[in-house]
Amino acid sequence: MRYLQRRDVQSPDKKNMILGIDVGGTTVKFAGVTLEGKVIDKQAFDTHAWEDSAQLFVDKLSEIILRYIAKHNIEGVGIGLPGLLSQDRQSTHVLANIPILNNQKFVPMVQEKIKGIPVQIENDAKCAALGEMYFGENANCGDYLFISIGTGVGGGYVLNGKLFIGSSGNATEIGHIPLKDGVTLEDHIGQEKITAHTYDLLKTKKYKQSILQGKELDPKIIYNAALSSDSCALDVFAEVGECIGETMIGVMRFADIHRFILGGGVAGAFEFIAPAMEGYLKNHLDSYYTEDLDIRPASLNAEAGILGAASLVMDKLKQVTA
Amino acid sequence: MRYLQRRDVQSPDKKNMILGIDVGGTTVKFAGVTLEGKVIDKQAFDTHAWEDSAQLFVDKLSEIILRYIAKHNIEGVGIGLPGLLSQDRQSTHVLANIPILNNQKFVPMVQEKIKGIPVQIENDAKCAALGEMYFGENANCGDYLFISIGTGVGGGYVLNGKLFIGSSGNATEIGHIPLKDGVTLEDHIGQEKITAHTYDLLKTKKYKQSILQGKELDPKIIYNAALSSDSCALDVFAEVGECIGETMIGVMRFADIHRFILGGGVAGAFEFIAPAMEGYLKNHLDSYYTEDLDIRPASLNAEAGILGAASLVMDKLKQVTA
Repeated sequence: MRYLQRRDVQSPDKKNMILGIDVGGTTVKFAGVTLEGKVIDKQAFDTHAWEDSAQLFVDKLSEIILRYIAKHNIEGVGIGLPGLLSQDRQSTHVLANIPILNNQKFVPMVQEKIKGIPVQIENDAKCAALGEMYFGENANCGDYLFISIGTGVGGGYVLNGKLFIGSSGNATEIGHIPLKDGVTLEDHIGQEKITAHTYDLLKTKKYKQSILQGKELDPKIIYNAALSSDSCALDVFAEVGECIGETMIGVMRFADIHRFILGGGVAGAFEFIAPAMEGYLKNHLDSYYTEDLDIRPASLNAEAGILGAASLVMDKLKQVTA
Repeated sequence: MRYLQRRDVQSPDKKNMILGIDVGGTTVKFAGVTLEGKVIDKQAFDTHAWEDSAQLFVDKLSEIILRYIAKHNIEGVGIGLPGLLSQDRQSTHVLANIPILNNQKFVPMVQEKIKGIPVQIENDAKCAALGEMYFGENANCGDYLFISIGTGVGGGYVLNGKLFIGSSGNATEIGHIPLKDGVTLEDHIGQEKITAHTYDLLKTKKYKQSILQGKELDPKIIYNAALSSDSCALDVFAEVGECIGETMIGVMRFADIHRFILGGGVAGAFEFIAPAMEGYLKNHLDSYYTEDLDIRPASLNAEAGILGAASLVMDKLKQVTA
């Protein structure tokens, strides 16, 4: 009801929207998101400039939030954070790339500055998972595990229309599940690991003819080589798919999930990753798990962080107005 | 409300109770269970004698149920089944040890014979997990993963006071999660595997002096040897603990579970298994996961199957009367 009242007192000529904030290790991105998922007034700030203290970070963040509130009819603020959060989603535990924010009563600190408008936080990969449900093309597909493959590898499990946060609040840390060789999924398929692995492969005789020889590599360049059927690039993405498949065996046995959405930068190579992942799963699981196996690309891409963060408040709005 | 009415029409001098049925590959066990967890009028039947057809099985099962109903004030019937069930818990999928019951509309078939009294089914390991919550000493400990180690290895995850069944209904099949060597947890630590592994170890020079040499082995005998500090027996159970620990790394990353209850026959050796499991987890996870790590023995033991099955209806009763 609070939201409905707010609309009445705010400018009736402005569109109601959510402020989505995507806090990353290098950039903090802000944008207004309409209830239909339109992203407007995007702004980005350097994370490092705010890292002197947690209070400075919150002060700067709140300053920008207040500017958005002055300019737009903001119904709520959703913030995606890269790390572990308290079960009640009020505090941070560990944010590996922004350690100044570790163990902070983050929501109360922000809410102290932003009165009357609800502020919610969530792990960034879980935000991206939720974003697919509220704003993506995978809105009504049923349960899924969203796998985010970028610098890090994260996950978000949408179960019965809600994020699964497990028993202590930080579920689906799939990037930290070890593969058979004891190395975690993230250390196999994180963006930099893929590039480093490709450099290694290029040193071997097998890939002497690869069009990637002598190039400065990144996942995009490797992807373009795969588009040209370069065997080294194809093998790299096939290995990525197999690594995901290997990790998912345990996840499927544990949570009986049969649907996966691959997102994040590396997942741009979906067409080369997904078949290997599917092949691995079909080789290692019986038909109960594979006959309805459904592996899809994420649909939000560039705006996934902002839309995911905004979707936190969509959830709240839905609950409040229901 | 249906239950309360039933009490009125039934003999007021009889105690209201639930009929718990534990369907195993060799025996089908029945018993009345009072709301306080007292087990009375236990009966057991040979599973194989009913295996001619699914209909015969249901007919025989229903015949016994009707006998209990005639004799006691049965409020509901809970049935634990060893295998995969449909998400709506009306049908069976795969019961590896009782294949005649695969893909049967089990609940409607039983309910056809048993009118007016609710019949519920659940996977047997999940029943045992729920039994700990309703009837065990671990009633109010919060969320936990129950790990059942017997002939097979199963699991049941109690999350917010309810069984977690995942997306397609058959979650926590932890016995089928492969370890680093590609062999599943069940194929490492199932009862027969432990015995076979011990025979193998006894052939090596290291365990030449073991008091287990020349004996016919079973987990109980190995346990007794461990009580006498036999190094072979101690090493066997330490390996069991390490195997569980290895499997739990992925489970903890996925569901953020920090509490485990070990049940089933092999878990009788809890004192020798748990320290190795704990050690493995502390060596492989940071303090976020291990500072509140809680590994407990199951408290129900011999009656776990019956009490677990009965607890299915406790759940229903609680919902109906709430």
